[in-house]
Amino acid sequence: MPAYNKITSAAAEELRACVSTGRFFFGGEADPNYTHDEMPIYGRFMPEAAVDVETTEEVSAIMKICSRYKIPVTCRGAGTGLVGGCVPLYGGLVLCTRRMNRILGYDMENLVVRLQPGVLLKDLAADALSRGLLYPPDPGEKTATVGGNISTNAGGMRAVKYGVTRDYVLAMTVVLADGRILELGKPVSKSSSGYSLLHLMIGSEGTLGIITEMALKLVPNPQCDVSCLVPFRDVESCIHFVPKVRLANLDPQSIEFMDADIVSSSAAFTGSPIFPERVANTAVGASVLVTFVGTEPDELDRRMIKLGEIAKEAGALDVLVVATPSNKKAAWSARSSFLTAIEADTRLIDEMDVVVPVDRIPAFLLYIRSLGEQTGIRIRNFGHAGDGNLHIYCCSNDLEEDEFKRRVKIIMDAAYRRCAELEGQVSGEHAIGHAKMAYLRESVGEDVFALMGGIKKVFDPDMLLNPGKVCDRERRTSC
Amino acid sequence: MPAYNKITSAAAEELRACVSTGRFFFGGEADPNYTHDEMPIYGRFMPEAAVDVETTEEVSAIMKICSRYKIPVTCRGAGTGLVGGCVPLYGGLVLCTRRMNRILGYDMENLVVRLQPGVLLKDLAADALSRGLLYPPDPGEKTATVGGNISTNAGGMRAVKYGVTRDYVLAMTVVLADGRILELGKPVSKSSSGYSLLHLMIGSEGTLGIITEMALKLVPNPQCDVSCLVPFRDVESCIHFVPKVRLANLDPQSIEFMDADIVSSSAAFTGSPIFPERVANTAVGASVLVTFVGTEPDELDRRMIKLGEIAKEAGALDVLVVATPSNKKAAWSARSSFLTAIEADTRLIDEMDVVVPVDRIPAFLLYIRSLGEQTGIRIRNFGHAGDGNLHIYCCSNDLEEDEFKRRVKIIMDAAYRRCAELEGQVSGEHAIGHAKMAYLRESVGEDVFALMGGIKKVFDPDMLLNPGKVCDRERRTSC
Repeated sequence: MPAYNKITSAAAEELRACVSTGRFFFGGEADPNYTHDEMPIYGRFMPEAAVDVETTEEVSAIMKICSRYKIPVTCRGAGTGLVGGCVPLYGGLVLCTRRMNRILGYDMENLVVRLQPGVLLKDLAADALSRGLLYPPDPGEKTATVGGNISTNAGGMRAVKYGVTRDYVLAMTVVLADGRILELGKPVSKSSSGYSLLHLMIGSEGTLGIITEMALKLVPNPQCDVSCLVPFRDVESCIHFVPKVRLANLDPQSIEFMDADIVSSSAAFTGSPIFPERVANTAVGASVLVTFVGTEPDELDRRMIKLGEIAKEAGALDVLVVATPSNKKAAWSARSSFLTAIEADTRLIDEMDVVVPVDRIPAFLLYIRSLGEQTGIRIRNFGHAGDGNLHIYCCSNDLEEDEFKRRVKIIMDAAYRRCAELEGQVSGEHAIGHAKMAYLRESVGEDVFALMGGIKKVFDPDMLLNPGKVCDRERRTSC
Repeated sequence: MPAYNKITSAAAEELRACVSTGRFFFGGEADPNYTHDEMPIYGRFMPEAAVDVETTEEVSAIMKICSRYKIPVTCRGAGTGLVGGCVPLYGGLVLCTRRMNRILGYDMENLVVRLQPGVLLKDLAADALSRGLLYPPDPGEKTATVGGNISTNAGGMRAVKYGVTRDYVLAMTVVLADGRILELGKPVSKSSSGYSLLHLMIGSEGTLGIITEMALKLVPNPQCDVSCLVPFRDVESCIHFVPKVRLANLDPQSIEFMDADIVSSSAAFTGSPIFPERVANTAVGASVLVTFVGTEPDELDRRMIKLGEIAKEAGALDVLVVATPSNKKAAWSARSSFLTAIEADTRLIDEMDVVVPVDRIPAFLLYIRSLGEQTGIRIRNFGHAGDGNLHIYCCSNDLEEDEFKRRVKIIMDAAYRRCAELEGQVSGEHAIGHAKMAYLRESVGEDVFALMGGIKKVFDPDMLLNPGKVCDRERRTSC
């Protein structure tokens, strides 16, 4: 167990001197929101101090001080995480990047944007679009920071066509635990130049270094898009349809999955049913929302027609084209409301974010459903059918928190084991934080977990950065 | 400096017992080709023994023995590398994967293929195609092994549309230096499950572990393709055209660059000029060969017409559609013959494989040309204009080898410095091996180089795997 020191008044004064007035907070001054992320059931942890940084040089100066005093440092963006990744388990300093929110410039010849890590995903997306460019990664939480997206290798809905955040990071500036500043990668698309520390940093959740600037790849924005809702009798036939869409060379941008439960929850929440619950007297068991993008409307028409043929062969109940702008807006805002609808309706909530091979989605969902029934926990789920990434929520309004946690643990333990049997991963895009560490360890095995721990020590020998996360063998549950 | 032991007769007998008869070679029995790759100017190094492995378990048993005796092990595929990556700098054992050449099976629901590392790229490509699937990475050397492609993160011509080898590796089995067997990744497209050891292994050139099985992602094969040759007066206007093609949302599969010198070398070599050297009385300074793929011929027609418009605005001398199958075959075999044409005409050869931001290609090529003139070394180059990856060859038929090396070193030292100024990488796809190690170190700096060295020690504390490569601080030039 590494020995950390508390932040003394002397250390606090040194830290305060690194930034301009009003950006360093000591003791009770720190924002109480810094004690948790969007999943407070994993515990609340108060930092001893917090700082809103603005530049790489400030981060470097702060890390030099923390390194000298052996103060643990937890980097935080917008705090929208779901696995306790940005909470200060061991107290210490929370270093917040929300003021590092500048887009530094576009290179239109090479389709590269440079930005600070605290830029929000929605702000980058809108700014790029105003230049005719698309930042393809599109995780559900648009108010996350892009730095946070990189730290968790966030995926999102468009991954079927465009890949995930990892695929768009070309270069970054990183501050190490001892304050040294590194440049990783270059603004080029190809590289075979030594071990990829860039790819190691992506998805490392602030445990190896603090990202202070990035160069990201953009693509020209496709001018047209169309979505089709394809309802099926049951989950199995619905998922069986997905590989057929991919094999037919239709190049969908996204294939989103929704079962009957989430559709009715969403309809109850929004007050206006958008996705059909019955088609011609048959109850809809599950649907997919398929989206195509392109440059020419008639090219999209052709793909839609082909999709219709495949859907018919696959036993779809119907194919509903989401055609008008208002239809489109309604469908996507209903889709985007799934998590909000679950949260609005639920007092206690926990979640998992597994990814399984696409054809094994039904097996996994049926297993989860049976676990919910056995334990008396309400299960809600939706996900990215095109890539097998499922967001599964365990919900209760009636249970005491301890009892809820006890039952959810039974579900989680069994579900992650089943996920491993199906050759899945613990997390598709929400990452590990401290909440999923034991499941990661079980999933990858002791040898791989120990190698991760070895890498951590190469970058951060004093274990100062975001301690207790990802592959830290020590874990405590309160500060 | 780690202390290695020579392979004694006793150790040799233990190693021989790991494999069936005829697959272990001791002393003078080893294939003399194992002393070099395709760039023998970097030196020849004789292994003390060699073994043709067939299974993960054999590799594990062999590494346990080598680990116990402290015998260095260099993994080799087809030996088509260009940076001395697979040569046994310190003698020891060469472990060759050429017999691990089985495609183990396709998962058509998830578009995944499992294979052994010794499968040749051309064999995987053909086999996938026979199932209607495309393995997108397409490095020029089709007789390389796929394991070698992963170890160097090879790129190739289709990277503009599809990305590089890294983007298609989902999972692998790896044997560590001490013989332990790891599974990295899963056959799914999304993951945020701890540090990506998978991505660390990709491009690590056999220095962190030995890859013994892989799961790769495939895509449906696009049914149609068309290529256009677009000649320009000079390199500058030619390269200036490239971002315009990308910004116009034409989604090219590849944009290959050729200057006048390589076109005339190739014509002299093949005996039949394929690419025009003059258009309407104007000498062609440089051309790009642009390829589109898709599912519908009229969709490609539309893109070609748009390409023609952009080319005209950009000052192209002409736009030549490579339409008939025989034209296509001739054009691509001429393009593929560039390196062979250079080699056929040259006694002494050395190369670099930098990648620079696309708009900086002309600045780099002009600089290289001036270096060639200053040193009296013939320069030939071609490359992937769409991603800035340039293959530059230094050639001589007249000089003594020592004098050639002296002059080439002047070129290389200056060119890699210029590449760094232009925000380029040392290697786009050929990797580092031992030939480019000093340039990697200079390019990434001491801090990053030391972190790579630290990671190496986590995986391979006795420095047994492929010593003297990538980020090894010790280097000797003879065994």
